[in-house]
Amino acid sequence: MVDLHDLIDLLPDGAVLTDPDLLAGYRHDWARDPGAGTPLAVVRATSTADVGATLRWADEHRVPVVPRGAGSGLSGGATAVDGGIVLSTERMRAITVDPVTRTAVVQPGLLNVEVKRAVAEHGLWYPPDPSSFEICSIGGNAATNAGGLCCVKYGVTTDYVLGMEVVLADGTAVRLGGPRLKDSAGLSLTKLFVGSEGTLGVITELTLRLLPAQPRQSTVVATFASLAAATEAILAITGMLRPSMLEFMDSVAINAVEDEMRMGLDRSAAALLVARSDAPGEFAAREAELMVGACEKAGASEVFHTEDPDEGEAFTAARRFAIPAVERIGPLLLEDVGVPLPRLGDLITGIAAIARRNDVLVSVIAHAGDGNTHPLIVHDPTDAANTERAHRAFGEIMDLAIELGGTITGEHGVGRLKKAWLPAQVGPEVMALTQRVKDALDPHGILNPGAVI
Amino acid sequence: MVDLHDLIDLLPDGAVLTDPDLLAGYRHDWARDPGAGTPLAVVRATSTADVGATLRWADEHRVPVVPRGAGSGLSGGATAVDGGIVLSTERMRAITVDPVTRTAVVQPGLLNVEVKRAVAEHGLWYPPDPSSFEICSIGGNAATNAGGLCCVKYGVTTDYVLGMEVVLADGTAVRLGGPRLKDSAGLSLTKLFVGSEGTLGVITELTLRLLPAQPRQSTVVATFASLAAATEAILAITGMLRPSMLEFMDSVAINAVEDEMRMGLDRSAAALLVARSDAPGEFAAREAELMVGACEKAGASEVFHTEDPDEGEAFTAARRFAIPAVERIGPLLLEDVGVPLPRLGDLITGIAAIARRNDVLVSVIAHAGDGNTHPLIVHDPTDAANTERAHRAFGEIMDLAIELGGTITGEHGVGRLKKAWLPAQVGPEVMALTQRVKDALDPHGILNPGAVI
Repeated sequence: MVDLHDLIDLLPDGAVLTDPDLLAGYRHDWARDPGAGTPLAVVRATSTADVGATLRWADEHRVPVVPRGAGSGLSGGATAVDGGIVLSTERMRAITVDPVTRTAVVQPGLLNVEVKRAVAEHGLWYPPDPSSFEICSIGGNAATNAGGLCCVKYGVTTDYVLGMEVVLADGTAVRLGGPRLKDSAGLSLTKLFVGSEGTLGVITELTLRLLPAQPRQSTVVATFASLAAATEAILAITGMLRPSMLEFMDSVAINAVEDEMRMGLDRSAAALLVARSDAPGEFAAREAELMVGACEKAGASEVFHTEDPDEGEAFTAARRFAIPAVERIGPLLLEDVGVPLPRLGDLITGIAAIARRNDVLVSVIAHAGDGNTHPLIVHDPTDAANTERAHRAFGEIMDLAIELGGTITGEHGVGRLKKAWLPAQVGPEVMALTQRVKDALDPHGILNPGAVI
Repeated sequence: MVDLHDLIDLLPDGAVLTDPDLLAGYRHDWARDPGAGTPLAVVRATSTADVGATLRWADEHRVPVVPRGAGSGLSGGATAVDGGIVLSTERMRAITVDPVTRTAVVQPGLLNVEVKRAVAEHGLWYPPDPSSFEICSIGGNAATNAGGLCCVKYGVTTDYVLGMEVVLADGTAVRLGGPRLKDSAGLSLTKLFVGSEGTLGVITELTLRLLPAQPRQSTVVATFASLAAATEAILAITGMLRPSMLEFMDSVAINAVEDEMRMGLDRSAAALLVARSDAPGEFAAREAELMVGACEKAGASEVFHTEDPDEGEAFTAARRFAIPAVERIGPLLLEDVGVPLPRLGDLITGIAAIARRNDVLVSVIAHAGDGNTHPLIVHDPTDAANTERAHRAFGEIMDLAIELGGTITGEHGVGRLKKAWLPAQVGPEVMALTQRVKDALDPHGILNPGAVI
């Protein structure tokens, strides 16, 4: 058993939590991984130096370290390990915005919404917008290469990370990249750490690229009597223009949202699309009209177009609310599979077949414009047989995505929940390559053991 | 001495060149590195299998391999090594375009311009546009994370690489990523290989993200009596909008271009800016008017605005032609330093001081909107003292860029010419980290030895 007093002495007063009641709150992220261990301690770092001291100590004593942002991860990337340290960045919350270079330097504990707000004060915009943007941390966003609703036009987190400070397994802090749009000096290590889910280092600062404030959006809402008609409309829209959002909800999600929000959604529809355009000025309305036409041509039962930003935001909020709304039916296993866009219809149809075969309720919502779906598998944890079927469906959905040339995770990360499927997606050679990089950067394997690899 | 016959037997007829006259053409890239060696042979691969066989053989016999695209590199990234193999991808030229997922799968030997043309047939656009786009290969673009003129709005090569096939040092081919805008499954290895300059593997296929065809551009050309006024205009423009191009030429470049092209450029100007907007429809003209206003407010001596695409293209071509035009004065050492935008004025002023101090002619052209400059150092190779002063200036310009928080290379790569400066930019910890990754992926050090690290 290692002696925690050395670690406590290295860190500021109050940085190390050992009270079992407090530790309990750091065992899980939102994946509620049943295999979660009980950590030895939680370190709530206040600085890069704290992170460095913690990792140096852990590496020397071969103590596992699970890095943690806001704990809102959905794949068990921040599941605590027995006898390990949970290293939380929640107290590292500084931000400075430079409107001239249009960049922000942020610490990892700041929430995504707080980054958005801080840069908006300078008329700027940080695009990536996970549905959880109000509760997820920017450090966690970088660790999982998080996406969101605007990715269909604006890309994902890695597209906005120009540089970082990251602490390696041995406690060394390195600075990578910086506030330069173009930099070909040396290996692209910045991008390697984005999406590495805490297995290669702990990010202590990010330099983010910003855009000018997003123009006002036009919004189209369309309902369809069949999934086929909806997927036809999706392909027609993305084939003709780049929407700033193109979201999908199936019948279960529509009804769950309507139960809670009473917006007058058509409960009989098989699918609902919410599409937006942020083209400048009147071009947004023109693009919206093109999208209306595409939906009508695909056989939409109802199409609604609004230029009112509040109304558009209400439909976007409804789509964001779909996950908690469906969760009222029962606890969810939350999937995150993606496919190349032409296979989206096959994926959605196949998921329905998997749900039927396993006799479980699966609601599908999707960032349809980039082929990234979130099948929500409702299950009853008090019913062992039902739970087993739900987990089987969870795996079969990933198998299907792989078969369709897709990915087991579009934006949530592999964590612990999806680890078993990663080799089937990427193959043994990529797994071996991944292991070589991991061994080179974390030779004692202290960083987030059990995650990803 | 290794026996080449084994290698020749592994490859298609004619794939291996050993004729000394032919080998001579593969010793240098455009950097004309005086330290270039003479290769044992050139392999002109026709397939991934050829690349795999060559690397397996080379790894086994510990023969250095220098990967080569079109040989248009400017940093000596494709300088041949004595007794090594030059592995050319010039014959791997297939492309397939998928308009539905808006992606293209391309082999590395295709030229950038050929990629642009092939996707344009589908109404699509591959943005990255190095000035050398008519002669540089897409594989080389990926290897150096190449930039270009549109990067100020559209980003660099890595922003468009969704996946690749890459052959590792031991000959194993791996597939990374794919035609998915979002993919958080496993480490971001795709992005690690982009910009790795052939030191980690040989790229044999790229999956590129495409955009809808670029809208028609409006063009603004402005001349300034002082460098300070020009840099003021640059900051004013980038502070208010995102131009699709914002290019700079100094007095030497203006005169060199005018000597060749007779466009009526103002020979007395200290600086010329070419700025473009590709905002949709009439918004391009509106943005152009804003840029005109910014130039006037900064004290431009002349400002010209055109909606005619051919006229706009002529000014863009003039800017692209600046390097060969200045080269008529004498052979060039071509720099590629970048700084955060607010330091651009300091960089340009500092370069002038370096030129004076070393008594050499330095012309500065720049992708001004992203702070990436190309100081062109004219020298006389027959004059040893002049050449020495030119090389001293070359180094001092990199020192200055580092001092200003910038980079020694914005888009050309480190290669062999800039290797000595990389540690000063990134620091010893990042160099050590780079070496660890290199050793993990290329344990026998056969891949492009002497480049970057």
